[in-house]
Amino acid sequence: MSLELRNLKGTKDFLPAEQQLRNRIKNTLESVFRRYGCRPLETPILCHYEVLASKYGGGEEILKEVYRLQDQGERELGLRYDLTIPFARVIGMNPNLRMPFKRYEIGRVYRDGPVKTGRLREFMQCDVDIAGVHSPVAEAELMVMALDAFSELGLNVYISYNNRKLLSGVLISLGISDAQISRVILSLDKVEKIGAGGVQEELQHEGIPLSLIDKIFAVFQDGVTTSYYEDNFSHPLVKAGVAELNELDSYLHALKLEDKVRFNPILARGLEIYTGTVYEVFLADSIIKGSIASGGRYDQIIGAFLESDLEYPAVGISFGLDVIFTALEMDGEGLETTVADFFLIPLGTVAACMEIAHLLRRAGLRVEMEMGERRLKRSLDYANKEAIPFVLILGENELVRQEINLRNMANGEERSLPLSNLAETLKQML
Amino acid sequence: MSLELRNLKGTKDFLPAEQQLRNRIKNTLESVFRRYGCRPLETPILCHYEVLASKYGGGEEILKEVYRLQDQGERELGLRYDLTIPFARVIGMNPNLRMPFKRYEIGRVYRDGPVKTGRLREFMQCDVDIAGVHSPVAEAELMVMALDAFSELGLNVYISYNNRKLLSGVLISLGISDAQISRVILSLDKVEKIGAGGVQEELQHEGIPLSLIDKIFAVFQDGVTTSYYEDNFSHPLVKAGVAELNELDSYLHALKLEDKVRFNPILARGLEIYTGTVYEVFLADSIIKGSIASGGRYDQIIGAFLESDLEYPAVGISFGLDVIFTALEMDGEGLETTVADFFLIPLGTVAACMEIAHLLRRAGLRVEMEMGERRLKRSLDYANKEAIPFVLILGENELVRQEINLRNMANGEERSLPLSNLAETLKQML
Repeated sequence: MSLELRNLKGTKDFLPAEQQLRNRIKNTLESVFRRYGCRPLETPILCHYEVLASKYGGGEEILKEVYRLQDQGERELGLRYDLTIPFARVIGMNPNLRMPFKRYEIGRVYRDGPVKTGRLREFMQCDVDIAGVHSPVAEAELMVMALDAFSELGLNVYISYNNRKLLSGVLISLGISDAQISRVILSLDKVEKIGAGGVQEELQHEGIPLSLIDKIFAVFQDGVTTSYYEDNFSHPLVKAGVAELNELDSYLHALKLEDKVRFNPILARGLEIYTGTVYEVFLADSIIKGSIASGGRYDQIIGAFLESDLEYPAVGISFGLDVIFTALEMDGEGLETTVADFFLIPLGTVAACMEIAHLLRRAGLRVEMEMGERRLKRSLDYANKEAIPFVLILGENELVRQEINLRNMANGEERSLPLSNLAETLKQML
Repeated sequence: MSLELRNLKGTKDFLPAEQQLRNRIKNTLESVFRRYGCRPLETPILCHYEVLASKYGGGEEILKEVYRLQDQGERELGLRYDLTIPFARVIGMNPNLRMPFKRYEIGRVYRDGPVKTGRLREFMQCDVDIAGVHSPVAEAELMVMALDAFSELGLNVYISYNNRKLLSGVLISLGISDAQISRVILSLDKVEKIGAGGVQEELQHEGIPLSLIDKIFAVFQDGVTTSYYEDNFSHPLVKAGVAELNELDSYLHALKLEDKVRFNPILARGLEIYTGTVYEVFLADSIIKGSIASGGRYDQIIGAFLESDLEYPAVGISFGLDVIFTALEMDGEGLETTVADFFLIPLGTVAACMEIAHLLRRAGLRVEMEMGERRLKRSLDYANKEAIPFVLILGENELVRQEINLRNMANGEERSLPLSNLAETLKQML
């Protein structure tokens, strides 16, 4: 039987053109993270299942999607489905870690779920989290860091933000019961996706009376500011949420980010784990409607996971590498197919060309060399298809004269360059 | 029951100090690879089991160590155990890939085997391979690339190399049978590990007569050159091996690498897949005896895996990230614990400090800011423990005067700097 070459649905190969852009995104993010004093962490993909299945907020839904396996020692294992559990585990296992602990991890995670458009079963997550800081300074720092990162990537974005205490407090004040509050919040969060009509239908389905639904819509109108809630609701959660938002706003103001951030009182972020600020980053003018990064404060999760009485306030942000990739591609970034600046073709001068290639590479230039026995025409054809902008051709006569031919592939112009100082000459040309 | 926080044996967390050095190694290697025109590739870890279990040379031994699992659709899956199968699969699935295809992949692989010193079950591989080149130019290029990479990493190395055709041809000429040749080669390869006595014992155990063993040792004495084999053995494999070595030597000579490479006629590399040149990179003066990178030519593997009549000559090199890490650590490289150049402490000036931190970060400086409500003494203590060399302290009076205090943590010296042009001032200082 012949072998069928294939990938598992929901996993994929990233061929060089794609992978070069993915690497550029990763490197840009990492370099911004480092300027913010974030520390790199790398944790295993292969985990004890019981650690993955602990009582942390992922819940039943996510556990259904865990890839499970047994090893030869019949241990129950699983592939990690996020980077938050490893983060909490590392904090628990390393009591001497100095707080605040500010780390980033870029790595693959796995979910055995339905493969929808743009949703893979093996995908890259890119998370920055800060544990040990109560102050909204942490949120402000992650928000401005995200703006810096997207600015370096050349993407025009804004951040939508809210506070879960404020949202919950207002809903409780209006008469939503504790049992209903999570589902109401999840419905409201979908307004962009399913429209006001859709939200209304869902809420009715939850058994919320129409009069209360009307009140909810009235209270969460566009353009409402935090002071409106402060003035009209006395619930302590509202007070606490407004206080946090006001402090956050003061930092965003100091950072002159007013035109980059938008308060949105019904923004909730799907997950239940959030306890305070939540935010999502959107492209300012794009047909991509979903967020390209998001996060918030989750003060209860790490302590709960560690079954600890200690407090582990935490705030994080997760960057969507795949959607950022799509955004850059749509932005006309184009895939960078060039892998070399120069293609070096020996005509009976292989050994000399190897030496020249080595000199140029040591000078930092990206050089490919013809390693086959192709004819000149086919070599040039290769360089052309690989979009290598310059070709260097060394024949035996040129070598005797200590010269080399440079051909500009864009216009076909050729000229002869002395071999001495070639690296310098070419560097200045680029 | 309380959750036991732990990692699977054979997997590990890389905490920031370690991970920073690992990232430096990865980034250095990638930057050298790119100068050699290598293309990045990223392939899935989660694979169809039948693709992993194909007839490629890994063989029974390696299949016993594959982590296997079923997904919800009851597909038979496995975690990849190397990067060579994915490389061959990508070539098979993308017939339009232009040859030569020169790619690198740095990624995790999995083996459910015994955990010995320095052997993990989840570990990082870092492979560069060139498919589509018959000429030893490819070997020379990978060898000089490895030397460049280790030179940039600051490690003093040499490359030991040989040719499998030569080795097999000589052994056949001496009277070793086809059935025995693989095991004889594997035994000879162990001479560094088990000594000449150990090899002799193994060979006797294989049923090789003592007189033949003596002949083998005589023929593979130290300091023997290729011309010795050329002159004394007429087997076509010897001729072919010598011709390949001579061509390779001419390139190594042109690259002036004579003092960095050493011909070793019994070097074999454990695996059976190699068909021509083999090489291993060793530290020149170190207590680490094993190789830190290795590879060779394997012209049959890709075609066999693809069940194709086409030829896919290939040559590769694999870098051992973990052993390179250990080597750098032993070399007194030390773990870089500093994650920031400056630690910024607000004394009642949080908002202003956020703005300053932002300016400095945008200028490329690595800045951490005190985000808690710690006292100055404890903040300074933190900066000290984190080995951050400079602290900036901004009190309300300084802010009014538009100044900030800079403290050099090495000697405790303090001075006042104007806030205007602070980024420039600090950059010049570093």
